[in-house]
Amino acid sequence: MAYNKITPDILSAITHIVGSDAVITGHAEMERYSHDETEDLRYYPEVVVKPKSTLEVAALLKLCNEHLIPVTPRGAGTGLSGGALPVMGGLVMAMERFNQIIAIDEQNLQATVEPGVITEEFMNQLAAKGLLYPIDPASKGSCFIGGNVSHGSGGPRVVKYGTIREYILNLELVLPSGEIIWTGADTLKYASGYNLTQLIIGSEGTLGIVTKIVVKLIPAPTVDALMLASFTSNDAACKAVSAIFRAGIIPSALEFMERRAIEWVIEKDAIVFDLQPGDAAFLLIEVDGNNADIIFTDCEKINTVLEEFGCTNVLFADTAIQKEELWRIRRTIGVSVKSNSVYKEEDTVVPRAALPQLIAGIKATGDKYGFESVCYGHAGDGNLHVNIIKANMSDDDWNNKLKDGIREIFELTVFLGGTLSGEHGIGLVQKDFMPIKYTPVHFEIWRGIKQVFDKNYILNPGKIFNR
Amino acid sequence: MAYNKITPDILSAITHIVGSDAVITGHAEMERYSHDETEDLRYYPEVVVKPKSTLEVAALLKLCNEHLIPVTPRGAGTGLSGGALPVMGGLVMAMERFNQIIAIDEQNLQATVEPGVITEEFMNQLAAKGLLYPIDPASKGSCFIGGNVSHGSGGPRVVKYGTIREYILNLELVLPSGEIIWTGADTLKYASGYNLTQLIIGSEGTLGIVTKIVVKLIPAPTVDALMLASFTSNDAACKAVSAIFRAGIIPSALEFMERRAIEWVIEKDAIVFDLQPGDAAFLLIEVDGNNADIIFTDCEKINTVLEEFGCTNVLFADTAIQKEELWRIRRTIGVSVKSNSVYKEEDTVVPRAALPQLIAGIKATGDKYGFESVCYGHAGDGNLHVNIIKANMSDDDWNNKLKDGIREIFELTVFLGGTLSGEHGIGLVQKDFMPIKYTPVHFEIWRGIKQVFDKNYILNPGKIFNR
Repeated sequence: MAYNKITPDILSAITHIVGSDAVITGHAEMERYSHDETEDLRYYPEVVVKPKSTLEVAALLKLCNEHLIPVTPRGAGTGLSGGALPVMGGLVMAMERFNQIIAIDEQNLQATVEPGVITEEFMNQLAAKGLLYPIDPASKGSCFIGGNVSHGSGGPRVVKYGTIREYILNLELVLPSGEIIWTGADTLKYASGYNLTQLIIGSEGTLGIVTKIVVKLIPAPTVDALMLASFTSNDAACKAVSAIFRAGIIPSALEFMERRAIEWVIEKDAIVFDLQPGDAAFLLIEVDGNNADIIFTDCEKINTVLEEFGCTNVLFADTAIQKEELWRIRRTIGVSVKSNSVYKEEDTVVPRAALPQLIAGIKATGDKYGFESVCYGHAGDGNLHVNIIKANMSDDDWNNKLKDGIREIFELTVFLGGTLSGEHGIGLVQKDFMPIKYTPVHFEIWRGIKQVFDKNYILNPGKIFNR
Repeated sequence: MAYNKITPDILSAITHIVGSDAVITGHAEMERYSHDETEDLRYYPEVVVKPKSTLEVAALLKLCNEHLIPVTPRGAGTGLSGGALPVMGGLVMAMERFNQIIAIDEQNLQATVEPGVITEEFMNQLAAKGLLYPIDPASKGSCFIGGNVSHGSGGPRVVKYGTIREYILNLELVLPSGEIIWTGADTLKYASGYNLTQLIIGSEGTLGIVTKIVVKLIPAPTVDALMLASFTSNDAACKAVSAIFRAGIIPSALEFMERRAIEWVIEKDAIVFDLQPGDAAFLLIEVDGNNADIIFTDCEKINTVLEEFGCTNVLFADTAIQKEELWRIRRTIGVSVKSNSVYKEEDTVVPRAALPQLIAGIKATGDKYGFESVCYGHAGDGNLHVNIIKANMSDDDWNNKLKDGIREIFELTVFLGGTLSGEHGIGLVQKDFMPIKYTPVHFEIWRGIKQVFDKNYILNPGKIFNR
């Protein structure tokens, strides 16, 4: 079943629904909607529409469904797997006008937000009330909560506070038919019917469009400590990760960065950082709570573990500014690498004790195929981001042979008990690697579920799996 | 499409798969498989089969699927919604031989267990290693982990540690076709494809049969404190619940019990408890962690909140024995009520600040319909169990009019932003109330999903929703 193009009649119906100021058709104006943060991919839609209400979204979806127009929902466009790319053309549903924090309910420690709210802005409003929503991806300053829901995003604090799945309680969802439902209830748990809230989280906008999000909040911790530990090898740093948990500590962040990651940041960001010749890898470790003495004791315990694993230096951040500087290094790695070179970012996740094997394997694969890689990520979750740098690779190798190397990385990931993508989603660019982990039975079930929600395949076509 | 009966040929094929010692057909022997802990309901299957391997489960499902034989998976039979009742006859798949803890992986803080492992036995093995899997329903001494997964079970510690959804990482699942898949990966998070792990949790054995479970473990806290606070009204106790969180404390348990609940326990269990004339309601509050001083400070903060809400007495459990006694009171309420009277147990969940309104409404409904109710539950989660006592109600009122009263309770629950069942599941007995909360669109989606997994509707038919 082929899709249809947007005719002048359909465009006029679209304009009738949302008003002409919410419709973009000019090529230049559509440029920023033609890409996200995934490599250098560009796909132009036929039209970009910016609805501002659930009813408008419903009317648009119903129209597109009747006319077989592809619809690609878009958040802030910070995605790293091509989820927001309108690969089949059609309509981009830009959710940027859904930018209201509807309610922060301090009685129930819940909030209701629209999907176009910037994650960090929401967190800042909560912080002013002593509350925390702990799901903060590296792109928190620009990404939308709706995008976080769609991709099952994480961030550094998942390791202590749990995944986004634990914080999303209920979703208002518009189906391709134009029907509007709430997926669940505004409660901390429920056991009635198949859990549609959880099914929508991570479904990358392929099953429906989220228009309201009810999240769980927790009291914000009042004290934290941050330390940066240096190691002379990736292996030593990775091995220390599991040992910290076995010592009975659950840090609020446990991030791995290899030397090369920090070098790229220094180059790009003019960050002052005293990189020592022997520093091969780093762990950025945060502990939080409500009592400074306990935090101090936890840091001491962690320090003991770090020493056992050959840590060469531990830098404690003494001030809020120092903490922010260390976090900035971690958060800007992706952007720094991207601005320095053509690259591809892959997202792997394994049981955390398998990290040493994973990273060794990635380096061996790099040697074999001639690519350089920069590895970093949420080591506490076993989640390693792998930025592959083009650098001196020939165009031919980059375009034709690299894919085999990436395949080997994912094969190793799966062999180690892991899977593709800890938190970036599959989108467009990881799709071809899915059969490494998943069987034809999985694809059959997924396609069946897709069919239940979106029988005409209009929603974000070409993502996660092929039709 | 009608189901078929189990013919001698089919029975012989079943016996061929599992061996004759794993097949029960005698009426008397099948008695214990004809009921669970739901009211006094009895449904006999045609055969009870006790497979011991995934391959046996697969062969049985394939056979039953080909011959259109209903299959009802059964854990320990501790369910409170009739989920394990073979209402259409056919085959009961008793999972009691799947009782192995396959691995406790201390490197990754994960374990792999079979679904027939008793929850408390697993927790005890973990405790010996300083580890915790914090999902412990009141029936933990007899229920199976597989049943907990199927019903999205909770227990008192969800309030601090998160729901079972946060601890179940991966499931080995047998489909009605006999195909075997792992739903996800052995990782703390992943974002690849629709999350089948989360879809199976809480699906009450209607989509597939779980044969292995990979769970997340955490370091066990080393210190805890337990206190029982008395109030002169349900309202005051319920209002204190939200205030505790607003004071920045997340207790590891926050349980509500009304006076009548404790009276029933005293009557049944010969527990020594000094119930004061003015005691109308109680909160059982646990705080845990790794530092006694912090625990003490938290208890003081909680105490301040309790006083603000008119708490009349706080009993601190000083010894492990005292703690166990207080917990025993809470855990045996359901059993005590059941052994004293014919009753129905309903499970409600609301945003926690709505508890005062919910409980007042339940009492008003009781007055209107002439039933007595005993309310208790996981107040920190907004999860209230409501035991409705027959007592002096006429058989006619009990059998014919009570249903309207229960309907009113669920209507209020939904009006308050909640839903049916916080953790008991829908099973057979709450099914008729589902349209109070859910729309025809939800049922259409659920039936569609059911169709994807189980096109012949052989798995646990008659549960959650009608075909």
